[in-house]
Amino acid sequence: MLETDSLTQDDVRQIVREEIKRAFKKDPARKNLSMVASKGTLDWAYPPLILATAGAAANMDAAIFFTFYGLNIIHKDFEKKLLVAPTGNPAMPMPVPMPDVITGMPGMKAFATGMMKSMFSKKGVATIKELLDVAMEMEVRLIACQMTMDVFGYEESDFLDGVEFGGAAAFLSDARKSHVTLFI
Amino acid sequence: MLETDSLTQDDVRQIVREEIKRAFKKDPARKNLSMVASKGTLDWAYPPLILATAGAAANMDAAIFFTFYGLNIIHKDFEKKLLVAPTGNPAMPMPVPMPDVITGMPGMKAFATGMMKSMFSKKGVATIKELLDVAMEMEVRLIACQMTMDVFGYEESDFLDGVEFGGAAAFLSDARKSHVTLFI
Amino acid sequence: MLETDSLTQDDVRQIVREEIKRAFKKDPARKNLSMVASKGTLDWAYPPLILATAGAAANMDAAIFFTFYGLNIIHKDFEKKLLVAPTGNPAMPMPVPMPDVITGMPGMKAFATGMMKSMFSKKGVATIKELLDVAMEMEVRLIACQMTMDVFGYEESDFLDGVEFGGAAAFLSDARKSHVTLFI
Repeated sequence: MLETDSLTQDDVRQIVREEIKRAFKKDPARKNLSMVASKGTLDWAYPPLILATAGAAANMDAAIFFTFYGLNIIHKDFEKKLLVAPTGNPAMPMPVPMPDVITGMPGMKAFATGMMKSMFSKKGVATIKELLDVAMEMEVRLIACQMTMDVFGYEESDFLDGVEFGGAAAFLSDARKSHVTLFI
Repeated sequence: MLETDSLTQDDVRQIVREEIKRAFKKDPARKNLSMVASKGTLDWAYPPLILATAGAAANMDAAIFFTFYGLNIIHKDFEKKLLVAPTGNPAMPMPVPMPDVITGMPGMKAFATGMMKSMFSKKGVATIKELLDVAMEMEVRLIACQMTMDVFGYEESDFLDGVEFGGAAAFLSDARKSHVTLFI
Repeated sequence: MLETDSLTQDDVRQIVREEIKRAFKKDPARKNLSMVASKGTLDWAYPPLILATAGAAANMDAAIFFTFYGLNIIHKDFEKKLLVAPTGNPAMPMPVPMPDVITGMPGMKAFATGMMKSMFSKKGVATIKELLDVAMEMEVRLIACQMTMDVFGYEESDFLDGVEFGGAAAFLSDARKSHVTLFI
């Protein structure tokens, strides 16, 4: 080929730059979403599950590493464990403004939890159970932190079927290949 | 060109590696900063706005996705909505140590909010209003989460002019192109 | 070289794609871990230190930017400053369920802090002091946020030896080169 023989260094650099530009648009790190879910209340159970399922729907490989209080979310008893407390969160919408000595009264956690569940349900937002089911169907990886399981006295059998077990090193090995990394 | 004719495979690999090394230093993901602002108190309104404006000042393309309680920050009534409560946060600096039954008394939220505003103002830190104005001038994208707007009963007209509206998919589509992704 | 003379544009593209594929596996952003530590309680002091030391053990370059209440973690008095409060966190494991007006009583912070320390110690988890020592030995960069130091009235001498000082711009300049970026 005539054209071939005349490939100069500049031609080569040109080709290289084209290929690199194209490659960065398909950077494999763009496909990966790695999250830590560290909170164990009803409100903070939503963001990791909503983001993971939205990511999976967009063909991303999503993983959630559940640590500290976040272990509640994948515990077999998550329905009982995921509560919400208005105390200390003045941003929580309440029917009337209340000081924390009132929001801290017996019964207020159950009241706030029921109110939040009802708000979500009225608006057609999926329940935590539904989001967990969808996440598992979409092959979102759900990983329980072994160190905090041990500290809180949990066994592997306390968690939902399909949950994996790993440490901080497992999270980092996944997260270092991901553009989207979030601590929730 | 004589030199051209002698381009070997090794020469080509050498050029390629040089170009790749250079390209990674200009990785387009280094320019992008995508944050979720999920808290609705005065203290947690600062970090996303400070980071976004600092990023924009360093020529980064910054976007903040406001969800859950974070919607308070871009609500037209943000001045009234952004409070701070010492209850449940033993790290909050208080004039004297207080147990939470005291910090939870009526009036303590207003007291703590006023104290924080005065500390910030004395030290010349911008107010939330000033940070929002700067962010908009610098073309930081402020995106309200449609799902939580719907759950909390907000309309588009409840939010500041210039705010955009989107879902988790919009956040992820932005975040997967960004090295800096933070859930605040 | 005969083979050289016949390098076509396709050959070159082939070489380029091979090299790019290899290069993305060694993307320099995979080596970097940049975190913000913004909480000042005992429970939230663990995640940044555990992740940073796990990252350093896996040959990552780890940096933690301490801001807002997070400054407590690297304060010389961190032992006294890092408490934990069950109030407002219904996910905190307690010996018996308690409403927040009880968890908010005088003495409950000391009780909860002692209980958490004892749980961690029984399970052989390192103390914050041990984690700080290991982090420093492993050359994890510990950076105090100058703006919040100023707001809270701290001096450089209030912090542990080896702590660096910087602003949001310093954090972003590091984080934009990192795949793993977390706001804790």
